[in-house]
Amino acid sequence: MTLIDGKAIAEQIKQEIAAEVADILAHGGKRPHLAAILVGHDGGSETYVANKVKACETCGFTSTLIRFEDNVTEETLLDKVRELNNNADVDGFIVQLPLPKHISEQKVIETIDYRKDVDGFHPINVGRMSIGLPCYISATPNGIMELLRRYDIDTRGKKCVVLGRSNIVGKPMASLMMQKAYPGDATVTVCHSRSNNLKEECRQADIIIAALGQPNFITADMVKEGAVIIDVGTTRVADATRKSGFRLNGDVKFDEVSPKCSFITPVPGGVGPMTICSLMKNTLLAGKKAIY
Amino acid sequence: MTLIDGKAIAEQIKQEIAAEVADILAHGGKRPHLAAILVGHDGGSETYVANKVKACETCGFTSTLIRFEDNVTEETLLDKVRELNNNADVDGFIVQLPLPKHISEQKVIETIDYRKDVDGFHPINVGRMSIGLPCYISATPNGIMELLRRYDIDTRGKKCVVLGRSNIVGKPMASLMMQKAYPGDATVTVCHSRSNNLKEECRQADIIIAALGQPNFITADMVKEGAVIIDVGTTRVADATRKSGFRLNGDVKFDEVSPKCSFITPVPGGVGPMTICSLMKNTLLAGKKAIY
Repeated sequence: MTLIDGKAIAEQIKQEIAAEVADILAHGGKRPHLAAILVGHDGGSETYVANKVKACETCGFTSTLIRFEDNVTEETLLDKVRELNNNADVDGFIVQLPLPKHISEQKVIETIDYRKDVDGFHPINVGRMSIGLPCYISATPNGIMELLRRYDIDTRGKKCVVLGRSNIVGKPMASLMMQKAYPGDATVTVCHSRSNNLKEECRQADIIIAALGQPNFITADMVKEGAVIIDVGTTRVADATRKSGFRLNGDVKFDEVSPKCSFITPVPGGVGPMTICSLMKNTLLAGKKAIY
Repeated sequence: MTLIDGKAIAEQIKQEIAAEVADILAHGGKRPHLAAILVGHDGGSETYVANKVKACETCGFTSTLIRFEDNVTEETLLDKVRELNNNADVDGFIVQLPLPKHISEQKVIETIDYRKDVDGFHPINVGRMSIGLPCYISATPNGIMELLRRYDIDTRGKKCVVLGRSNIVGKPMASLMMQKAYPGDATVTVCHSRSNNLKEECRQADIIIAALGQPNFITADMVKEGAVIIDVGTTRVADATRKSGFRLNGDVKFDEVSPKCSFITPVPGGVGPMTICSLMKNTLLAGKKAIY
Protein backbone atom coordinates (compact mmCIF):
# COMPACT_ATOMS: atom_id res chain seq x y z
CA MET A 1 0.00 0.00 0.00
CA THR A 2 1.32 3.42 -0.97
CA LEU A 3 0.20 6.43 1.04
CA ILE A 4 -0.34 9.38 -1.31
CA ASP A 5 1.46 12.31 0.26
CA GLY A 6 -0.56 15.31 -0.89
CA LYS A 7 1.28 17.61 1.46
CA ALA A 8 4.68 16.79 -0.01
CA ILE A 9 3.42 16.98 -3.61
CA ALA A 10 1.75 20.32 -2.89
CA GLU A 11 5.00 21.71 -1.44
CA GLN A 12 6.89 20.47 -4.47
CA ILE A 13 4.42 22.10 -6.89
CA LYS A 14 4.54 25.41 -5.02
CA GLN A 15 8.34 25.34 -5.35
CA GLU A 16 7.98 24.64 -9.07
CA ILE A 17 5.60 27.60 -9.38
CA ALA A 18 7.94 29.85 -7.38
CA ALA A 19 10.81 28.91 -9.71
CA GLU A 20 8.68 29.75 -12.75
CA VAL A 21 7.65 33.08 -11.25
CA ALA A 22 11.30 33.91 -10.58
CA ASP A 23 12.03 33.09 -14.20
CA ILE A 24 9.14 35.29 -15.42
CA LEU A 25 10.41 38.20 -13.31
CA ALA A 26 13.99 37.66 -14.49
CA HIS A 27 12.73 38.07 -18.05
CA GLY A 28 10.95 41.32 -17.20
CA GLY A 29 7.51 39.74 -16.85
CA LYS A 30 4.76 40.62 -14.42
CA ARG A 31 4.32 39.02 -10.99
CA PRO A 32 1.01 37.04 -10.96
CA HIS A 33 -1.62 38.68 -8.77
CA LEU A 34 -4.45 36.84 -7.01
CA ALA A 35 -7.21 38.72 -5.23
CA ALA A 36 -9.67 37.14 -2.79
CA ILE A 37 -12.94 38.51 -1.50
CA LEU A 38 -13.97 37.32 1.94
CA VAL A 39 -17.43 38.11 3.31
CA GLY A 40 -18.02 37.76 7.06
CA HIS A 41 -15.95 35.85 9.60
CA ASP A 42 -16.80 32.16 9.19
CA GLY A 43 -14.00 30.17 10.83
CA GLY A 44 -13.51 27.75 7.94
CA SER A 45 -13.48 30.52 5.34
CA GLU A 46 -11.01 32.59 7.40
CA THR A 47 -8.65 29.60 7.53
CA TYR A 48 -8.96 28.84 3.81
CA VAL A 49 -8.34 32.43 2.79
CA ALA A 50 -5.40 32.79 5.18
CA ASN A 51 -3.88 29.63 3.68
CA LYS A 52 -4.41 30.99 0.18
CA VAL A 53 -2.67 34.23 1.05
CA LYS A 54 0.21 32.26 2.59
CA ALA A 55 0.47 30.02 -0.51
CA CYS A 56 0.65 33.16 -2.68
CA GLU A 57 3.69 34.27 -0.68
CA THR A 58 5.37 30.89 -1.13
CA CYS A 59 4.72 31.03 -4.88
CA GLY A 60 5.94 34.60 -5.24
CA PHE A 61 2.52 35.99 -6.19
CA THR A 62 1.07 39.32 -5.20
CA SER A 63 -2.10 38.77 -3.17
CA THR A 64 -4.87 41.15 -2.20
CA LEU A 65 -7.49 40.33 0.42
CA ILE A 66 -10.72 42.30 0.28
CA ARG A 67 -13.05 41.98 3.26
CA PHE A 68 -16.73 42.74 3.67
CA GLU A 69 -18.90 42.34 6.74
CA ASP A 70 -21.67 39.78 6.31
CA ASN A 71 -24.31 42.47 5.99
CA VAL A 72 -22.77 43.69 2.72
CA THR A 73 -25.38 44.13 -0.02
CA GLU A 74 -25.33 41.96 -3.12
CA GLU A 75 -24.91 45.07 -5.27
CA THR A 76 -21.85 46.29 -3.34
CA LEU A 77 -20.28 42.86 -3.70
CA LEU A 78 -21.09 42.72 -7.42
CA ASP A 79 -19.60 46.19 -7.87
CA LYS A 80 -16.36 44.97 -6.32
CA VAL A 81 -16.39 41.95 -8.63
CA ARG A 82 -16.81 44.26 -11.64
CA GLU A 83 -14.00 46.46 -10.36
CA LEU A 84 -11.68 43.45 -10.14
CA ASN A 85 -12.79 42.35 -13.62
CA ASN A 86 -11.55 45.70 -14.89
CA ASN A 87 -8.40 45.92 -12.79
CA ALA A 88 -5.62 45.05 -15.24
CA ASP A 89 -3.16 44.27 -12.45
CA VAL A 90 -5.35 41.52 -10.98
CA ASP A 91 -4.81 38.34 -13.04
CA GLY A 92 -7.32 36.21 -11.24
CA PHE A 93 -9.61 36.38 -8.24
CA ILE A 94 -11.95 34.34 -6.11
CA VAL A 95 -14.94 35.03 -3.93
CA GLN A 96 -14.71 32.71 -0.93
CA LEU A 97 -17.87 30.60 -0.57
CA PRO A 98 -20.26 30.18 1.13
CA LEU A 99 -21.82 33.65 1.03
CA PRO A 100 -24.56 34.96 3.36
CA LYS A 101 -28.05 33.81 2.35
CA HIS A 102 -29.18 37.21 1.03
CA ILE A 103 -26.54 37.09 -1.72
CA SER A 104 -26.94 34.89 -4.80
CA GLU A 105 -23.74 32.86 -5.13
CA GLN A 106 -24.64 31.98 -8.70
CA LYS A 107 -25.05 35.65 -9.64
CA VAL A 108 -21.67 36.45 -8.10
CA ILE A 109 -19.99 33.57 -9.93
CA GLU A 110 -21.52 34.57 -13.26
CA THR A 111 -20.47 38.20 -12.78
CA ILE A 112 -16.81 37.21 -12.50
CA ASP A 113 -15.02 37.61 -15.83
CA TYR A 114 -14.46 33.96 -16.87
CA ARG A 115 -10.93 34.91 -17.93
CA LYS A 116 -10.13 35.72 -14.28
CA ASP A 117 -12.23 32.91 -12.78
CA VAL A 118 -9.35 30.93 -11.26
CA ASP A 119 -11.80 28.91 -9.15
CA GLY A 120 -13.23 27.52 -12.43
CA PHE A 121 -16.84 27.94 -11.28
CA HIS A 122 -18.12 30.14 -14.15
CA PRO A 123 -20.41 28.23 -16.56
CA ILE A 124 -18.02 28.96 -19.44
CA ASN A 125 -15.16 27.23 -17.63
CA VAL A 126 -17.42 24.36 -16.58
CA GLY A 127 -18.66 23.95 -20.17
CA ARG A 128 -15.21 24.18 -21.72
CA MET A 129 -13.93 21.52 -19.33
CA SER A 130 -16.79 19.21 -20.29
CA ILE A 131 -16.08 19.70 -24.00
CA GLY A 132 -12.34 19.24 -23.43
CA LEU A 133 -11.20 22.81 -24.23
CA PRO A 134 -8.49 24.70 -22.30
CA CYS A 135 -10.01 26.35 -19.21
CA TYR A 136 -9.65 26.91 -15.49
CA ILE A 137 -10.44 23.59 -13.83
CA SER A 138 -11.82 23.82 -10.32
CA ALA A 139 -9.31 23.25 -7.57
CA THR A 140 -10.21 19.95 -5.93
CA PRO A 141 -10.69 17.88 -9.12
CA ASN A 142 -7.58 19.45 -10.60
CA GLY A 143 -5.60 18.56 -7.49
CA ILE A 144 -6.78 14.96 -7.64
CA MET A 145 -5.77 14.71 -11.30
CA GLU A 146 -2.32 15.98 -10.33
CA LEU A 147 -1.98 13.34 -7.59
CA LEU A 148 -2.93 10.57 -10.03
CA ARG A 149 -0.38 11.94 -12.51
CA ARG A 150 2.46 12.35 -10.02
CA TYR A 151 1.96 8.83 -8.63
CA ASP A 152 1.66 7.49 -12.19
CA ILE A 153 -1.58 5.71 -11.33
CA ASP A 154 -3.08 3.83 -14.27
CA THR A 155 -6.57 5.10 -15.11
CA ARG A 156 -7.05 4.02 -18.73
CA GLY A 157 -10.02 1.70 -19.16
CA LYS A 158 -10.29 1.31 -15.37
CA LYS A 159 -13.58 1.44 -13.50
CA CYS A 160 -13.65 4.69 -11.55
CA VAL A 161 -16.50 5.26 -9.12
CA VAL A 162 -17.12 8.87 -8.08
CA LEU A 163 -19.22 9.19 -4.93
CA GLY A 164 -21.13 12.46 -4.88
CA ARG A 165 -22.44 14.71 -7.63
CA SER A 166 -21.64 18.21 -6.38
CA ASN A 167 -20.87 20.95 -8.88
CA ILE A 168 -17.43 21.54 -7.42
CA VAL A 169 -16.18 17.97 -6.97
CA GLY A 170 -18.32 15.05 -8.19
CA LYS A 171 -19.44 16.34 -11.57
CA PRO A 172 -16.13 17.88 -12.72
CA MET A 173 -14.26 14.83 -11.40
CA ALA A 174 -16.45 12.58 -13.56
CA SER A 175 -15.89 14.83 -16.61
CA LEU A 176 -12.13 14.73 -16.17
CA MET A 177 -11.89 11.00 -15.55
CA MET A 178 -13.85 10.21 -18.73
CA GLN A 179 -11.89 12.57 -20.98
CA LYS A 180 -9.69 11.14 -23.77
CA ALA A 181 -6.42 11.83 -21.96
CA TYR A 182 -4.24 10.72 -19.08
CA PRO A 183 -5.28 10.86 -16.28
CA GLY A 184 -8.68 9.88 -17.59
CA ASP A 185 -9.96 7.43 -20.22
CA ALA A 186 -11.68 5.63 -17.35
CA THR A 187 -15.11 4.02 -17.27
CA VAL A 188 -16.76 6.46 -14.88
CA THR A 189 -19.72 5.77 -12.59
CA VAL A 190 -21.25 8.55 -10.50
CA CYS A 191 -23.08 7.38 -7.37
CA HIS A 192 -25.00 9.60 -4.96
CA SER A 193 -27.57 9.62 -2.19
CA ARG A 194 -30.26 8.21 -4.50
CA SER A 195 -28.17 5.32 -5.88
CA ASN A 196 -29.65 1.87 -5.25
CA ASN A 197 -26.44 -0.03 -5.89
CA LEU A 198 -23.72 2.16 -4.42
CA LYS A 199 -21.97 -0.60 -2.47
CA GLU A 200 -21.97 -2.97 -5.43
CA GLU A 201 -20.49 -0.27 -7.67
CA CYS A 202 -17.75 0.43 -5.12
CA ARG A 203 -16.85 -3.23 -4.79
CA GLN A 204 -16.18 -3.38 -8.54
CA ALA A 205 -14.17 -0.16 -8.66
CA ASP A 206 -10.48 0.04 -9.52
CA ILE A 207 -10.53 3.66 -8.36
CA ILE A 208 -12.91 5.24 -5.83
CA ILE A 209 -13.11 9.00 -5.47
CA ALA A 210 -15.19 9.66 -2.36
CA ALA A 211 -16.76 13.10 -2.02
CA LEU A 212 -19.91 12.47 0.00
CA GLY A 213 -18.98 14.31 3.19
CA GLN A 214 -20.08 11.32 5.30
CA PRO A 215 -17.37 10.35 7.80
CA ASN A 216 -16.23 6.70 7.66
CA PHE A 217 -18.82 5.86 4.98
CA ILE A 218 -16.46 3.64 2.96
CA THR A 219 -15.78 0.42 4.86
CA ALA A 220 -13.44 -2.46 3.99
CA ASP A 221 -16.26 -4.64 2.63
CA MET A 222 -16.96 -2.01 -0.03
CA VAL A 223 -13.44 -2.02 -1.44
CA LYS A 224 -11.79 -4.41 -3.89
CA GLU A 225 -8.30 -5.70 -3.11
CA GLY A 226 -5.75 -3.40 -4.81
CA ALA A 227 -8.10 -0.47 -5.34
CA VAL A 228 -6.98 3.16 -5.46
CA ILE A 229 -8.84 5.34 -2.93
CA ILE A 230 -9.02 9.11 -3.13
CA ASP A 231 -10.74 10.55 -0.07
CA VAL A 232 -12.14 14.05 -0.58
CA GLY A 233 -14.16 14.07 2.63
CA THR A 234 -13.16 16.65 5.24
CA THR A 235 -15.91 16.62 7.82
CA ARG A 236 -15.18 18.34 11.12
CA VAL A 237 -15.74 15.85 13.90
CA ALA A 238 -15.70 16.92 17.55
CA ASP A 239 -12.47 15.81 19.26
CA ALA A 240 -11.83 16.93 22.83
CA THR A 241 -8.17 15.83 22.65
CA ARG A 242 -7.42 18.54 20.07
CA LYS A 243 -6.70 22.14 20.86
CA SER A 244 -9.13 23.19 18.10
CA GLY A 245 -11.83 20.91 19.55
CA PHE A 246 -12.25 19.01 16.26
CA ARG A 247 -10.45 16.85 13.77
CA LEU A 248 -10.97 16.37 10.05
CA ASN A 249 -12.52 13.05 9.13
CA GLY A 250 -12.55 11.58 5.64
CA ASP A 251 -15.31 9.59 3.93
CA VAL A 252 -13.15 6.47 4.25
CA LYS A 253 -12.70 4.30 7.33
CA PHE A 254 -8.95 4.56 6.88
CA ASP A 255 -7.73 1.94 9.35
CA GLU A 256 -9.66 -0.96 7.87
CA VAL A 257 -9.66 0.17 4.22
CA SER A 258 -6.02 1.15 3.75
CA PRO A 259 -4.54 -2.38 4.02
CA LYS A 260 -6.61 -3.42 0.96
CA CYS A 261 -5.51 -0.52 -1.24
CA SER A 262 -2.71 -0.10 -3.75
CA PHE A 263 -2.84 3.68 -3.17
CA ILE A 264 -4.79 5.77 -0.69
CA THR A 265 -4.91 9.43 0.36
CA PRO A 266 -4.95 10.19 4.08
CA VAL A 267 -7.18 12.86 5.68
CA PRO A 268 -5.69 15.32 6.41
CA GLY A 269 -2.63 15.55 4.17
CA GLY A 270 -4.05 13.95 1.02
CA VAL A 271 -6.38 15.87 -1.27
CA GLY A 272 -6.67 18.93 1.01
CA PRO A 273 -3.23 20.48 0.46
CA MET A 274 -3.62 19.97 -3.32
CA THR A 275 -6.69 22.19 -3.49
CA ILE A 276 -4.93 25.46 -2.72
CA CYS A 277 -2.05 24.30 -4.86
CA SER A 278 -4.43 23.99 -7.86
CA LEU A 279 -5.62 27.54 -7.25
CA MET A 280 -1.99 28.65 -7.38
CA LYS A 281 -1.51 26.81 -10.68
CA ASN A 282 -4.58 28.53 -12.14
CA THR A 283 -3.26 31.88 -10.93
CA LEU A 284 0.06 31.22 -12.65
CA LEU A 285 -1.84 30.35 -15.87
CA ALA A 286 -3.84 33.56 -15.48
CA GLY A 287 -0.68 35.60 -14.93
CA LYS A 288 0.83 34.09 -18.09
CA LYS A 289 -2.44 34.60 -20.00
CA ALA A 290 -1.96 30.97 -20.97
CA ILE A 291 -5.65 30.11 -21.45
CA TYR A 292 -7.47 33.31 -22.35
CA MET B 1 -42.09 -5.15 -24.21
CA THR B 2 -43.20 -1.64 -25.11
CA LEU B 3 -41.93 -0.11 -28.33
CA ILE B 4 -41.19 3.57 -27.75
CA ASP B 5 -42.83 5.42 -30.61
CA GLY B 6 -40.63 8.48 -31.06
CA LYS B 7 -42.38 9.39 -34.28
CA ALA B 8 -45.79 9.62 -32.64
CA ILE B 9 -44.47 11.51 -29.60
CA ALA B 10 -42.62 13.93 -31.87
CA GLU B 11 -45.81 14.62 -33.86
CA GLN B 12 -47.72 15.15 -30.65
CA ILE B 13 -45.13 17.62 -29.33
CA LYS B 14 -45.09 19.55 -32.58
CA GLN B 15 -48.87 19.89 -32.34
CA GLU B 16 -48.51 21.11 -28.75
CA ILE B 17 -45.97 23.68 -29.91
CA ALA B 18 -48.21 24.78 -32.81
CA ALA B 19 -51.08 25.29 -30.36
CA GLU B 20 -48.86 27.39 -28.10
CA VAL B 21 -47.66 29.48 -31.06
CA ALA B 22 -51.28 30.08 -32.11
CA ASP B 23 -51.98 31.21 -28.57
CA ILE B 24 -48.97 33.54 -28.55
CA LEU B 25 -50.09 35.09 -31.85
CA ALA B 26 -53.69 35.41 -30.61
CA HIS B 27 -52.33 37.45 -27.72
CA GLY B 28 -50.40 39.75 -30.04
CA GLY B 29 -47.04 38.01 -29.51
CA LYS B 30 -44.29 37.41 -32.01
CA ARG B 31 -43.99 34.30 -34.19
CA PRO B 32 -40.80 32.38 -33.19
CA HIS B 33 -38.12 32.56 -35.86
CA LEU B 34 -35.42 29.93 -36.43
CA ALA B 35 -32.60 30.51 -38.88
CA ALA B 36 -30.29 27.79 -40.17
CA ILE B 37 -26.96 28.15 -41.94
CA LEU B 38 -26.06 25.33 -44.31
CA VAL B 39 -22.60 25.13 -45.84
CA GLY B 40 -22.09 22.92 -48.91
CA HIS B 41 -24.30 20.11 -50.18
CA ASP B 42 -23.66 17.08 -47.96
CA GLY B 43 -26.58 14.69 -48.43
CA GLY B 44 -27.16 14.07 -44.74
CA SER B 45 -27.00 17.77 -43.85
CA GLU B 46 -29.37 18.67 -46.70
CA THR B 47 -31.90 16.17 -45.36
CA TYR B 48 -31.57 17.33 -41.75
CA VAL B 49 -31.96 20.99 -42.66
CA ALA B 50 -34.92 20.28 -44.96
CA ASN B 51 -36.59 18.39 -42.10
CA LYS B 52 -35.92 21.28 -39.74
CA VAL B 53 -37.50 23.76 -42.14
CA LYS B 54 -40.50 21.44 -42.52
CA ALA B 55 -40.83 21.08 -38.73
CA CYS B 56 -40.81 24.88 -38.42
CA GLU B 57 -43.81 25.02 -40.76
CA THR B 58 -45.66 22.43 -38.69
CA CYS B 59 -44.95 24.36 -35.51
CA GLY B 60 -45.96 27.71 -36.99
CA PHE B 61 -42.45 29.18 -36.81
CA THR B 62 -40.82 31.49 -39.30
CA SER B 63 -37.73 29.83 -40.75
CA THR B 64 -34.85 31.23 -42.74
CA LEU B 65 -32.34 29.08 -44.57
CA ILE B 66 -29.00 30.66 -45.39
CA ARG B 67 -26.75 28.76 -47.77
CA PHE B 68 -23.04 29.01 -48.48
CA GLU B 69 -20.94 27.00 -50.90
CA ASP B 70 -18.32 24.84 -49.22
CA ASN B 71 -15.51 27.17 -50.27
CA VAL B 72 -16.93 29.95 -48.06
CA THR B 73 -14.25 31.54 -45.87
CA GLU B 74 -14.38 31.21 -42.09
CA GLU B 75 -14.57 34.99 -41.80
CA THR B 76 -17.60 35.26 -44.11
CA LEU B 77 -19.35 32.58 -42.10
CA LEU B 78 -18.48 34.25 -38.79
CA ASP B 79 -19.76 37.58 -40.17
CA LYS B 80 -23.09 35.94 -40.93
CA VAL B 81 -23.20 34.47 -37.42
CA ARG B 82 -22.60 37.93 -35.96
CA GLU B 83 -25.31 39.37 -38.22
CA LEU B 84 -27.79 36.78 -36.92
CA ASN B 85 -26.69 37.50 -33.34
CA ASN B 86 -27.71 41.12 -33.93
CA ASN B 87 -30.89 40.43 -35.91
CA ALA B 88 -33.66 41.06 -33.39
CA ASP B 89 -36.21 39.14 -35.45
CA VAL B 90 -34.20 35.90 -35.30
CA ASP B 91 -34.88 34.22 -31.95
CA GLY B 92 -32.52 31.32 -32.41
CA PHE B 93 -30.28 29.86 -35.08
CA ILE B 94 -28.11 26.89 -35.85
CA VAL B 95 -25.12 26.23 -38.06
CA GLN B 96 -25.53 22.75 -39.49
CA LEU B 97 -22.51 20.57 -38.73
CA PRO B 98 -20.17 19.20 -39.98
CA LEU B 99 -18.41 22.17 -41.58
CA PRO B 100 -15.65 21.97 -44.21
CA LYS B 101 -12.21 21.29 -42.73
CA HIS B 102 -10.87 24.82 -43.29
CA ILE B 103 -13.47 26.23 -40.86
CA SER B 104 -13.14 25.84 -37.09
CA GLU B 105 -16.43 24.44 -35.82
CA GLN B 106 -15.52 25.41 -32.28
CA LYS B 107 -14.87 29.02 -33.30
CA VAL B 108 -18.23 29.15 -35.08
CA ILE B 109 -20.05 27.66 -32.07
CA GLU B 110 -18.40 30.11 -29.67
CA THR B 111 -19.25 33.06 -31.91
CA ILE B 112 -22.98 32.27 -31.71
CA ASP B 113 -24.68 34.38 -29.03
CA TYR B 114 -25.44 31.77 -26.33
CA ARG B 115 -28.88 33.33 -25.92
CA LYS B 116 -29.70 32.26 -29.50
CA ASP B 117 -27.78 28.95 -29.38
CA VAL B 118 -30.81 26.66 -29.73
CA ASP B 119 -28.50 23.72 -30.52
CA GLY B 120 -27.11 24.07 -26.99
CA PHE B 121 -23.50 23.65 -28.14
CA HIS B 122 -22.05 26.90 -26.73
CA PRO B 123 -19.83 26.32 -23.64
CA ILE B 124 -22.13 28.52 -21.56
CA ASN B 125 -25.11 26.29 -22.30
CA VAL B 126 -23.03 23.14 -21.75
CA GLY B 127 -21.75 24.51 -18.43
CA ARG B 128 -25.16 25.68 -17.25
CA MET B 129 -26.62 22.27 -18.01
CA SER B 130 -23.90 20.58 -15.98
CA ILE B 131 -24.52 22.89 -13.01
CA GLY B 132 -28.28 22.43 -13.34
CA LEU B 133 -29.20 25.96 -14.45
CA PRO B 134 -31.84 26.81 -17.09
CA CYS B 135 -30.28 26.61 -20.57
CA TYR B 136 -30.67 25.28 -24.09
CA ILE B 137 -30.10 21.53 -23.85
CA SER B 138 -28.77 19.88 -26.98
CA ALA B 139 -31.34 18.18 -29.12
CA THR B 140 -30.66 14.45 -28.87
CA PRO B 141 -30.24 14.23 -25.07
CA ASN B 142 -33.23 16.51 -24.61
CA GLY B 143 -35.32 14.30 -26.91
CA ILE B 144 -34.34 11.19 -24.96
CA MET B 145 -35.30 12.86 -21.67
CA GLU B 146 -38.67 13.68 -23.19
CA LEU B 147 -39.23 10.04 -24.25
CA LEU B 148 -38.40 8.80 -20.74
CA ARG B 149 -40.83 11.38 -19.32
CA ARG B 150 -43.69 10.66 -21.72
CA TYR B 151 -43.42 6.90 -21.16
CA ASP B 152 -43.12 7.50 -17.41
CA ILE B 153 -40.00 5.35 -17.21
CA ASP B 154 -38.56 5.11 -13.70
CA THR B 155 -35.00 6.41 -13.56
CA ARG B 156 -34.52 7.25 -9.88
CA GLY B 157 -31.69 5.28 -8.32
CA LYS B 158 -31.50 3.05 -11.39
CA LYS B 159 -28.25 2.04 -13.03
CA CYS B 160 -28.01 3.87 -16.35
CA VAL B 161 -25.18 2.98 -18.71
CA VAL B 162 -24.36 5.54 -21.39
CA LEU B 163 -22.30 4.12 -24.25
CA GLY B 164 -20.20 6.81 -25.92
CA ARG B 165 -18.70 10.06 -24.61
CA SER B 166 -19.33 12.50 -27.45
CA ASN B 167 -19.90 16.16 -26.68
CA ILE B 168 -23.32 16.14 -28.31
CA VAL B 169 -24.78 12.90 -26.91
CA GLY B 170 -22.81 10.86 -24.38
CA LYS B 171 -21.55 13.61 -22.06
CA PRO B 172 -24.76 15.70 -21.88
CA MET B 173 -26.81 12.52 -21.52
CA ALA B 174 -24.73 11.52 -18.50
CA SER B 175 -25.11 15.01 -16.99
CA LEU B 176 -28.87 14.94 -17.37
CA MET B 177 -29.34 11.41 -16.05
CA MET B 178 -27.38 12.19 -12.87
CA GLN B 179 -29.16 15.49 -12.13
CA LYS B 180 -31.39 15.77 -9.04
CA ALA B 181 -34.66 15.65 -11.00
CA TYR B 182 -36.92 13.38 -12.98
CA PRO B 183 -35.93 12.05 -15.45
CA GLY B 184 -32.58 11.64 -13.77
CA ASP B 185 -31.40 10.77 -10.27
CA ALA B 186 -29.83 7.69 -11.81
CA THR B 187 -26.50 6.06 -11.03
CA VAL B 188 -24.76 6.87 -14.30
CA THR B 189 -21.88 4.97 -15.90
CA VAL B 190 -20.23 6.24 -19.07
CA CYS B 191 -18.52 3.56 -21.16
CA HIS B 192 -16.51 4.16 -24.33
CA SER B 193 -13.99 2.64 -26.71
CA ARG B 194 -11.35 2.39 -23.96
CA SER B 195 -13.57 0.72 -21.34
CA ASN B 196 -12.30 -2.67 -20.16
CA ASN B 197 -15.60 -3.80 -18.70
CA LEU B 198 -18.22 -2.47 -21.11
CA LYS B 199 -20.17 -5.73 -21.45
CA GLU B 200 -20.25 -6.32 -17.71
CA GLU B 201 -21.54 -2.77 -17.12
CA CYS B 202 -24.27 -3.27 -19.72
CA ARG B 203 -25.39 -6.55 -18.18
CA GLN B 204 -26.02 -4.78 -14.87
CA ALA B 205 -27.83 -1.81 -16.42
CA ASP B 206 -31.48 -0.97 -15.82
CA ILE B 207 -31.24 1.57 -18.65
CA ILE B 208 -28.82 1.53 -21.59
CA ILE B 209 -28.40 4.59 -23.78
CA ALA B 210 -26.34 3.49 -26.77
CA ALA B 211 -24.56 6.19 -28.76
CA LEU B 212 -21.50 4.45 -30.16
CA GLY B 213 -22.36 4.50 -33.85
CA GLN B 214 -21.48 0.80 -34.17
CA PRO B 215 -24.29 -1.12 -35.88
CA ASN B 216 -25.62 -4.13 -33.95
CA PHE B 217 -23.06 -3.68 -31.18
CA ILE B 218 -25.49 -4.46 -28.34
CA THR B 219 -26.40 -8.13 -28.40
CA ALA B 220 -28.89 -10.06 -26.24
CA ASP B 221 -26.19 -11.44 -23.93
CA MET B 222 -25.28 -7.87 -22.92
CA VAL B 223 -28.78 -6.97 -21.75
CA LYS B 224 -30.52 -7.72 -18.47
CA GLU B 225 -34.10 -9.01 -18.54
CA GLY B 226 -36.47 -6.04 -18.26
CA ALA B 227 -33.94 -3.36 -19.22
CA VAL B 228 -34.85 -0.11 -20.95
CA ILE B 229 -32.92 0.41 -24.20
CA ILE B 230 -32.51 3.76 -25.91
CA ASP B 231 -30.76 3.37 -29.26
CA VAL B 232 -29.16 6.58 -30.54
CA GLY B 233 -27.20 4.86 -33.32
CA THR B 234 -28.08 5.84 -36.88
CA THR B 235 -25.38 4.37 -39.07
CA ARG B 236 -26.08 4.25 -42.79
CA VAL B 237 -25.69 0.67 -43.97
CA ALA B 238 -25.74 -0.21 -47.67
CA ASP B 239 -29.06 -1.83 -48.63
CA ALA B 240 -29.68 -2.58 -52.29
CA THR B 241 -33.39 -3.24 -51.65
CA ARG B 242 -33.94 0.44 -50.74
CA LYS B 243 -34.48 3.22 -53.25
CA SER B 244 -31.93 5.33 -51.35
CA GLY B 245 -29.39 2.49 -51.44
CA PHE B 246 -29.04 2.45 -47.65
CA ARG B 247 -30.93 1.93 -44.43
CA LEU B 248 -30.36 3.33 -40.94
CA ASN B 249 -28.99 0.83 -38.46
CA GLY B 250 -28.99 1.31 -34.70
CA ASP B 251 -26.32 0.28 -32.19
CA VAL B 252 -28.65 -2.45 -30.93
CA LYS B 253 -29.31 -5.85 -32.52
CA PHE B 254 -33.00 -5.16 -32.29
CA ASP B 255 -34.43 -8.60 -33.17
CA GLU B 256 -32.64 -10.47 -30.41
CA VAL B 257 -32.52 -7.69 -27.81
CA SER B 258 -36.08 -6.37 -27.94
CA PRO B 259 -37.76 -9.49 -26.43
CA LYS B 260 -35.72 -8.98 -23.23
CA CYS B 261 -36.61 -5.31 -22.80
CA SER B 262 -39.32 -3.53 -20.87
CA PHE B 263 -38.98 -0.56 -23.25
CA ILE B 264 -36.96 -0.11 -26.43
CA THR B 265 -36.63 2.53 -29.15
CA PRO B 266 -36.61 1.32 -32.76
CA VAL B 267 -34.27 2.72 -35.44
CA PRO B 268 -35.63 4.56 -37.33
CA GLY B 269 -38.64 6.05 -35.55
CA GLY B 270 -37.27 6.16 -32.02
CA VAL B 271 -34.78 8.82 -30.95
CA GLY B 272 -34.36 10.30 -34.44
CA PRO B 273 -37.71 12.13 -34.77
CA MET B 274 -37.30 13.55 -31.23
CA THR B 275 -34.08 15.36 -32.16
CA ILE B 276 -35.67 17.91 -34.48
CA CYS B 277 -38.58 18.15 -32.08
CA SER B 278 -36.18 19.24 -29.30
CA LEU B 279 -34.80 21.94 -31.56
CA MET B 280 -38.35 23.18 -32.06
CA LYS B 281 -38.88 23.25 -28.30
CA ASN B 282 -35.69 25.28 -27.83
CA THR B 283 -36.82 27.67 -30.57
CA LEU B 284 -40.15 28.14 -28.80
CA LEU B 285 -38.26 28.88 -25.56
CA ALA B 286 -36.07 31.36 -27.47
CA GLY B 287 -39.14 33.02 -29.00
CA LYS B 288 -40.67 33.39 -25.55
CA LYS B 289 -37.33 34.59 -24.08
CA ALA B 290 -38.02 31.96 -21.46
CA ILE B 291 -34.39 31.23 -20.56
CA TYR B 292 -32.34 34.35 -21.35
